[in-house]
Amino acid sequence: MKKIISLFLAVCTALPVFTQEKGKIDIPDLKGYVTLKCDFHMHTVFSDGSVWPVVRVDEAYRDGLDAISITDHLEYRPKKDDLATSHNRSYEIAQAAAKNRKIMLIRGAEITREMPPGHSNAIFLTNADELDKPDYMDAFRAAKAQNAFIFWNHPGWLAQQPDTTLWWPEHTRLHEQGMMHGIEVVNGEYYPEVHRWCLDKKLTMLGNTDVHAPMQTFAPGKHRTMTLVFARSATTEAIYEALMARRTVVYHDEFLIGEETYLKELFENALEWKTRKEGNVVTVTVTNNSDLTFRLKKTRSDARLIYFRNTSIVPFTIAPKSTRSFTVRLLDGIQGGDVNFIVENLLAEPNTGMKYTLKI
Amino acid sequence: MKKIISLFLAVCTALPVFTQEKGKIDIPDLKGYVTLKCDFHMHTVFSDGSVWPVVRVDEAYRDGLDAISITDHLEYRPKKDDLATSHNRSYEIAQAAAKNRKIMLIRGAEITREMPPGHSNAIFLTNADELDKPDYMDAFRAAKAQNAFIFWNHPGWLAQQPDTTLWWPEHTRLHEQGMMHGIEVVNGEYYPEVHRWCLDKKLTMLGNTDVHAPMQTFAPGKHRTMTLVFARSATTEAIYEALMARRTVVYHDEFLIGEETYLKELFENALEWKTRKEGNVVTVTVTNNSDLTFRLKKTRSDARLIYFRNTSIVPFTIAPKSTRSFTVRLLDGIQGGDVNFIVENLLAEPNTGMKYTLKI
Amino acid sequence: MKKIISLFLAVCTALPVFTQEKGKIDIPDLKGYVTLKCDFHMHTVFSDGSVWPVVRVDEAYRDGLDAISITDHLEYRPKKDDLATSHNRSYEIAQAAAKNRKIMLIRGAEITREMPPGHSNAIFLTNADELDKPDYMDAFRAAKAQNAFIFWNHPGWLAQQPDTTLWWPEHTRLHEQGMMHGIEVVNGEYYPEVHRWCLDKKLTMLGNTDVHAPMQTFAPGKHRTMTLVFARSATTEAIYEALMARRTVVYHDEFLIGEETYLKELFENALEWKTRKEGNVVTVTVTNNSDLTFRLKKTRSDARLIYFRNTSIVPFTIAPKSTRSFTVRLLDGIQGGDVNFIVENLLAEPNTGMKYTLKI
Amino acid sequence: MKKIISLFLAVCTALPVFTQEKGKIDIPDLKGYVTLKCDFHMHTVFSDGSVWPVVRVDEAYRDGLDAISITDHLEYRPKKDDLATSHNRSYEIAQAAAKNRKIMLIRGAEITREMPPGHSNAIFLTNADELDKPDYMDAFRAAKAQNAFIFWNHPGWLAQQPDTTLWWPEHTRLHEQGMMHGIEVVNGEYYPEVHRWCLDKKLTMLGNTDVHAPMQTFAPGKHRTMTLVFARSATTEAIYEALMARRTVVYHDEFLIGEETYLKELFENALEWKTRKEGNVVTVTVTNNSDLTFRLKKTRSDARLIYFRNTSIVPFTIAPKSTRSFTVRLLDGIQGGDVNFIVENLLAEPNTGMKYTLKI
Repeated sequence: MKKIISLFLAVCTALPVFTQEKGKIDIPDLKGYVTLKCDFHMHTVFSDGSVWPVVRVDEAYRDGLDAISITDHLEYRPKKDDLATSHNRSYEIAQAAAKNRKIMLIRGAEITREMPPGHSNAIFLTNADELDKPDYMDAFRAAKAQNAFIFWNHPGWLAQQPDTTLWWPEHTRLHEQGMMHGIEVVNGEYYPEVHRWCLDKKLTMLGNTDVHAPMQTFAPGKHRTMTLVFARSATTEAIYEALMARRTVVYHDEFLIGEETYLKELFENALEWKTRKEGNVVTVTVTNNSDLTFRLKKTRSDARLIYFRNTSIVPFTIAPKSTRSFTVRLLDGIQGGDVNFIVENLLAEPNTGMKYTLKI
Repeated sequence: MKKIISLFLAVCTALPVFTQEKGKIDIPDLKGYVTLKCDFHMHTVFSDGSVWPVVRVDEAYRDGLDAISITDHLEYRPKKDDLATSHNRSYEIAQAAAKNRKIMLIRGAEITREMPPGHSNAIFLTNADELDKPDYMDAFRAAKAQNAFIFWNHPGWLAQQPDTTLWWPEHTRLHEQGMMHGIEVVNGEYYPEVHRWCLDKKLTMLGNTDVHAPMQTFAPGKHRTMTLVFARSATTEAIYEALMARRTVVYHDEFLIGEETYLKELFENALEWKTRKEGNVVTVTVTNNSDLTFRLKKTRSDARLIYFRNTSIVPFTIAPKSTRSFTVRLLDGIQGGDVNFIVENLLAEPNTGMKYTLKI
Repeated sequence: MKKIISLFLAVCTALPVFTQEKGKIDIPDLKGYVTLKCDFHMHTVFSDGSVWPVVRVDEAYRDGLDAISITDHLEYRPKKDDLATSHNRSYEIAQAAAKNRKIMLIRGAEITREMPPGHSNAIFLTNADELDKPDYMDAFRAAKAQNAFIFWNHPGWLAQQPDTTLWWPEHTRLHEQGMMHGIEVVNGEYYPEVHRWCLDKKLTMLGNTDVHAPMQTFAPGKHRTMTLVFARSATTEAIYEALMARRTVVYHDEFLIGEETYLKELFENALEWKTRKEGNVVTVTVTNNSDLTFRLKKTRSDARLIYFRNTSIVPFTIAPKSTRSFTVRLLDGIQGGDVNFIVENLLAEPNTGMKYTLKI
Repeated sequence: MKKIISLFLAVCTALPVFTQEKGKIDIPDLKGYVTLKCDFHMHTVFSDGSVWPVVRVDEAYRDGLDAISITDHLEYRPKKDDLATSHNRSYEIAQAAAKNRKIMLIRGAEITREMPPGHSNAIFLTNADELDKPDYMDAFRAAKAQNAFIFWNHPGWLAQQPDTTLWWPEHTRLHEQGMMHGIEVVNGEYYPEVHRWCLDKKLTMLGNTDVHAPMQTFAPGKHRTMTLVFARSATTEAIYEALMARRTVVYHDEFLIGEETYLKELFENALEWKTRKEGNVVTVTVTNNSDLTFRLKKTRSDARLIYFRNTSIVPFTIAPKSTRSFTVRLLDGIQGGDVNFIVENLLAEPNTGMKYTLKI
């Protein structure tokens, strides 16, 4: 039998394999930081997912991610009669593939409880097995003891919060004891209440897929929900530091959700503006060098600047990798002024586009 | 802990799941038979595949298949330190999903040996564990004892047949002893030698995916390799009877590979022909009601019929769900005749398109 | 020379022509009316367009329209040194093609003046040449004398209204004298001011392409801007009656713009609703049988009905030809109530989505 | 009226125009020559086409062409009652747009006669009107007097050659008198007989669209039929010299048709080959830097080199901008040898792929 297997291993590299190319999503870096694309919430057969851990690495490679964390449930393991029981196995199995694909792999686990406190992910663990405790507080303490970065998952999940997206006293306790560093602002859908909490309580905003089945293939221009992490370098240590320092933006569908300072810098670094003045007409040309989309709508402005006249329903959209122009007419002899608008898909506040002023 | 899990199970149906619609591929039935789309070769985590068995059912549903067989390797199980050991587990696990999705699931296993005799699938098993024997002949005998349908896999695989696609004495022995009923004519690629063997030795032709990773998503109009089975009804018993009676055609890329009688009936049932005569010009209009493609090229014909003048390099292609016309000019006062052509993508002989005559 | 040409004509039908299929856009009819897809503003080489009139008919056929009007400029004819001068020629030339393609062709012309009154189309003319007058009022009078349907084109055009979309005294005069029946609410872009005028002054709303170059090919699911006309039958007479009776809706990008009564009936006729109650949860399933898109967002409602929790930024979108579900939770023992929402892309008022209540 | 028009002209540049980007097709240059993409056969409203001449320039720009010739029929002008009569008008009108778009525009005309001699294009004319003569020989003589490059159009057109693609005595005469320099090998379809004639009689091969309607929009990776001209520089003079010197290849669908010397250099300049030897297995990796496709099939070779085992029906296809590998096994201790194949879509002879040998 040995001989059979060794032969098999020897020839396996000759098998025709579907080759996937590395995906690429152009999002600008920020000053002093690289922008890393991360997904910190996903499952495998080691909990209630349906793929072997290496698949998560292959998918991340194809989707253009830099880092992932596999976060199998500690308490919910419907396949456990068939599978080995260490909570570290999915991480261990994925390691070789991650190294080969150059995907940063972060050890994680999901503490899976009724509400409150619901489900939470602990990542940057050293040993997931130590979190397998009957009392949830013991699980959180074990995570904290490993210096984990801990975040609350999908607080708006209908199954656990059927009527309102509530913050419970238990979350106050976890937060105060340094056992909750962030929350998912997006998991399948956007939770505006969570956006508010993160701004007010200084919590890190995360957006993840929580994928269980094989990850779908995205059409060109589409992408999975991810957390953009602004890190000092492309290392797991730098991701940890950035998460603790709350330097993240959530990228979901066409939306970027985060603190204004990061949204603004992403907006500015993605775009190049040129203006040309002829008489009282200024032609503004903007080039988008990124894969992001920006949808602009006029806000209150000096009545002597005429621009974006009809953007109240249909925004002025700057598509990825494109160049567009618009004109600003200057009345009453003024020589310039403020072009005010919101970028309606950059959410600096819950459900609210980011305000911006272009001086011309 | 019980409570946690039961709560979880209770709410799981509320989880947002990526809903896949049932795929649909229009291929006509034959007289007295339904055309079933089948894939009899695939792997899961229970051998060297990377998905949980239910994923194979979901993929089959999405891809429009009627029946599948999961055929995990008996002798090659690189994940066996993590996973349960019965060779029946992948079948058992997939059963509920198959029932729910209305996919016929056939119990199978792959007898995985060096060449000769190489790899073979045994399907319609009752207990896969009984095939786990040191001597390959014992494995085949156990399969035969369960009345399995047995076929040789990928005889042209470079890893096992690096120079030529050879038929070995061992295959003669298996065939003569009723332990080889069919062969894969397509597995990743088409093997013309196997096509010849099947025709000469009266073996069933099969085409399967042998998929290990998550099945790719196909672009519109594309499909996975499959075996078309012409069965008396849509039941597993009828599939068994049809396989034993060699009523199959392999559907691979734009090619249909099989015995002429089935290819011809598929061709005729997929197309509707109309002719209109004006003077000495007959306009032939053909409507393709199927998702199959047909590529026609003129062959030797009566010089007094002028048609398909320039099809030697570029065929006259009848695309799926489309209507096309061409003209036939009748010279020297003839009133009709034979429009001879080959359908170059319907292979009734190795590497050879099927001949056809349209009388007008 | 005669012989050459007659030969040529004889064989022309044998020329390989790019065959375009008739386009199809599914939009429901209204009670007592058929919904006709119309574009009443387009140009050819007979003014400043760049295609021969038959091209406009072919494009309309491909795009699934029922009726068009070619509206070449009366006063602006940059190609007139090369071309025949009757303003009726583009109509005359297109007639045979329109008959062949079963596209209703309406004789039109564009009265092309400085602002005020800017550009206007007169359609349902009997002789366009009679409108070629130095004084614009004479042109309008000539159109009126032919019982034309007359509408003001692109009132928000920056070239003529650089600062604001203004209604001038001249328009009041035209309106009062029965020489302005409608206005373009959309021409390239949506003009909310015009939407207001149409509602207040009881003018017909139109949306047209004003296409000059060859019409672009639309990607699947996309369409040209058009005027939906709710007519008693599919005849030009019925279109005239419907336009005069203001039974139109403008279909632009994903927007439908018009009077609430028509928008509401389109919405209701496009969708099928089903509800299923289990305990205090009502599952609402909606099937969209049309090619229209509907984007729903929750509005103020009884706090005891929990639904559409997170639709303030991302709407609940019902895509064309699709089925979707959502749940409504009933609190405090209520048995039903009003599910209130706006359909944000159905504009019954300027820049404002249509309100709707679903009773459950 | 003047005022109206001048106002109109002043604002026209502000009109929202559908902006088309310049198309790009990567085809390598040859040593000493630039590869220019040309279409020398197209119609406008000035004969039986349906677009204004500038449209042909815009389409060429969008499709990535370098040079075009508008070749309106001299004798067939169905719109002549509406349009100016000089045969030079379409050229004159298109000139400004061509200069603006940087498309080389070559003055041409189509001499449109019954068979024999059928239709011919004369390009590089100085005055097309001089070709408008009752006797076709006078038309050809006038073209020759202007040093035109003259080619026979679509010799296989069913309307003029219903039974066989024939060479008539009249063509011998034109050829011998220096009034036929080339022939269309492709016009809608490929004519293998013409390919033969061009090789035997040393005539220039051309492939053109003969487009009459607006040019269709091509899906990514698709292109219009064109003549590749290998010119000393990107000038009209260099194109003339190259056409007279027969340095062309026809690019039609996935086919390249021409003399072997040019096909071979295109093939070699488009591809980069790398080999890596391990034991008796050579892995050959080929990178295609062009937008061309190459389909390889094994031909007779030393039996001790094992490669391309199953390419008789399905070729080894090197897709545009892609990298692929295959292995060559060396038997009996040989250290290298000839990898022989045909590139089946590079036609160096009628209906026959180009032979090629890769030495390893």
